[in-house]
Amino acid sequence: MNIITFLTDFGIKNSYISQMKAVALSITEAKIIDISHEITPHNIKEGAFVLYSTVPYFPSGTVHVAVVDPGVGTNRRGIVITTRSQILIGPDNGLLIPAARRIGDFKVYEIANKNLMLSNISNTFHGRDIFTPVAANILNGVEFNQIGPIVTDFIDINFGKSEIFDKIAIGKIIYVDNFGNIITNIDGFQLRRFLEYGKKISLSIAEKHYEIPFVKSYNFVNKDEILATIGSSNLLELAINQGNASKKLKLKPDDDIKIHYN
Amino acid sequence: MNIITFLTDFGIKNSYISQMKAVALSITEAKIIDISHEITPHNIKEGAFVLYSTVPYFPSGTVHVAVVDPGVGTNRRGIVITTRSQILIGPDNGLLIPAARRIGDFKVYEIANKNLMLSNISNTFHGRDIFTPVAANILNGVEFNQIGPIVTDFIDINFGKSEIFDKIAIGKIIYVDNFGNIITNIDGFQLRRFLEYGKKISLSIAEKHYEIPFVKSYNFVNKDEILATIGSSNLLELAINQGNASKKLKLKPDDDIKIHYN
Amino acid sequence: MNIITFLTDFGIKNSYISQMKAVALSITEAKIIDISHEITPHNIKEGAFVLYSTVPYFPSGTVHVAVVDPGVGTNRRGIVITTRSQILIGPDNGLLIPAARRIGDFKVYEIANKNLMLSNISNTFHGRDIFTPVAANILNGVEFNQIGPIVTDFIDINFGKSEIFDKIAIGKIIYVDNFGNIITNIDGFQLRRFLEYGKKISLSIAEKHYEIPFVKSYNFVNKDEILATIGSSNLLELAINQGNASKKLKLKPDDDIKIHYN
Repeated sequence: MNIITFLTDFGIKNSYISQMKAVALSITEAKIIDISHEITPHNIKEGAFVLYSTVPYFPSGTVHVAVVDPGVGTNRRGIVITTRSQILIGPDNGLLIPAARRIGDFKVYEIANKNLMLSNISNTFHGRDIFTPVAANILNGVEFNQIGPIVTDFIDINFGKSEIFDKIAIGKIIYVDNFGNIITNIDGFQLRRFLEYGKKISLSIAEKHYEIPFVKSYNFVNKDEILATIGSSNLLELAINQGNASKKLKLKPDDDIKIHYN
Repeated sequence: MNIITFLTDFGIKNSYISQMKAVALSITEAKIIDISHEITPHNIKEGAFVLYSTVPYFPSGTVHVAVVDPGVGTNRRGIVITTRSQILIGPDNGLLIPAARRIGDFKVYEIANKNLMLSNISNTFHGRDIFTPVAANILNGVEFNQIGPIVTDFIDINFGKSEIFDKIAIGKIIYVDNFGNIITNIDGFQLRRFLEYGKKISLSIAEKHYEIPFVKSYNFVNKDEILATIGSSNLLELAINQGNASKKLKLKPDDDIKIHYN
Repeated sequence: MNIITFLTDFGIKNSYISQMKAVALSITEAKIIDISHEITPHNIKEGAFVLYSTVPYFPSGTVHVAVVDPGVGTNRRGIVITTRSQILIGPDNGLLIPAARRIGDFKVYEIANKNLMLSNISNTFHGRDIFTPVAANILNGVEFNQIGPIVTDFIDINFGKSEIFDKIAIGKIIYVDNFGNIITNIDGFQLRRFLEYGKKISLSIAEKHYEIPFVKSYNFVNKDEILATIGSSNLLELAINQGNASKKLKLKPDDDIKIHYN
């Protein structure tokens, strides 16, 4: 079973996504899965997190095409990344790296072989004209050494540093989901070595102080109450039971966060 | 042909839906169909209606995974429902019941067998860690008696009572679609025993009185005029030709409705 | 590999799209691809452009079901269009014609054969009850002469006239995408016979005058600067690098546009 996924910031109103899928199906037979097309336009880090959070669940051999690409048409490179089990394709702007590093054992190839692309290449839509046909050709069996040279000077990004001590943890907000849940870069397994469910954490936001219960899931507090939990990506999350924590706490991606506990 | 559908309130911005699809494809080969991911967050009754309205059109053997699940991580049960022809999987909060009852002949199993789930189960995302792998395992041929015990004390919901007489019909608003069409729980076939196309119905909303033509379809009145019709789910619908009836009439789900006719 | 695509103005919140897909899969095994379900409600011309822009990329034999259908339930006809390589199905209101003409060699059949439809036909949802089952039956091998009579008096629409001279080009806005990029009906190949990348174009909008660089791609100007480029559909596009040109320039579909250059 061949699988291609697509992640973009194109939105679902226009026909750009279906143009990519049409190109894929013109070259190979594959199952097509959308990861998201609602990445905030040009927000590479947000796209990188969404990709990072879902890639580990896909079967070995899956090919991911990701396009959040403000530099399209300039001399930014296109890349293919092979990993222990899956393949990532997109612009060389950091978008693919956190996912690739999470799977592990990765190598980056610059896309250079014009035979793997469409014959007419627009300056504004490499997702359709380069990345998708390369993906489809890889599923058809093209060898990685046909793509182009291996490069080591690719652009790298990460989600910031976090530190977890016995009474304090410091990190950053990575992402806010559509429920308004605030996802940090603080690792859940590590945090739980120092902090038990049922305890409280304290944090200050804009001179306001909060004492928040650390619980197993959203519904362990009353409706509309703030809580902290370990979310489904094993990261510390601030949420409101059936409410929007991001609006209430006014926290957004890249904000620093520091929590205290006993 | 194996088919899995997904209905959630997760929205399409994040990667939660694709995580579920990835888990499904890691366990089985199936065609994946989205029903909707834009259910109003935590609105179980809305999700139940959307599921109810589409399930009858799917082929026999289709497995539906539905996740509108404010109680995730608490002791609310997960259930599998078998029916005359299709299978429904999700939380025991009423979400699945109207669809199951519509298909008929249904039995409810509590999900208890940990071998059918992912090995790591988060407290916040049973859609990915329990419901989807159970669905994929069922498509792979796991027998229903392997799932867990049959239960009869499941949580039930319905869309309210409606009554249709020779000059009056009483019911409730169930749903407003994205055109602003207002869908009631008043059955179309029954209503037409007393009311002919071309006649008028009268109703009062917030002390305002309306006389509305009952017509075969939207375009039988002029643009921007209010009409009543039997919609595609065979339910009485209030609409505006090429306009938004819900905004104009200020009617919303769960509102009572009473219409008069001759 | 059988492929059915769907384009509608139904939105993705309700279950209408999945009802169509369920009907398709009940009749035939096919790969299902969404083009868009976020066409502005009842905007036939917008739907026609989105279809036109993506259809050429699909493989030969693809069947497209398109439903932007304010006239549903009246005596407007349903049609099947065969072309050199693909098939289009939907209402006879112009929606399908620009895509059909772009592929070329097209013939229009009126849908008349009730055996190809669902047995119960609602008055408000021919997408599910007529167009989709006809599409699935065509994929199953039904001959085109079984559909109904060939018609020549179908409703036609187009995207307006454009004219390109050595110092001036005149045309219309066709579409604004979700980035706010403004797509005109001015052909890129023809324009480039008179205008080189790196030059400026001048245009006036609401008594304001603009001098805009004509460049290869968005990133050839600084962030937040206006540019003109040839977009991925080979049409002249006005854009702002990482910004929203439609909001800034207050241009919208059907507006006239006149540009000067040297």
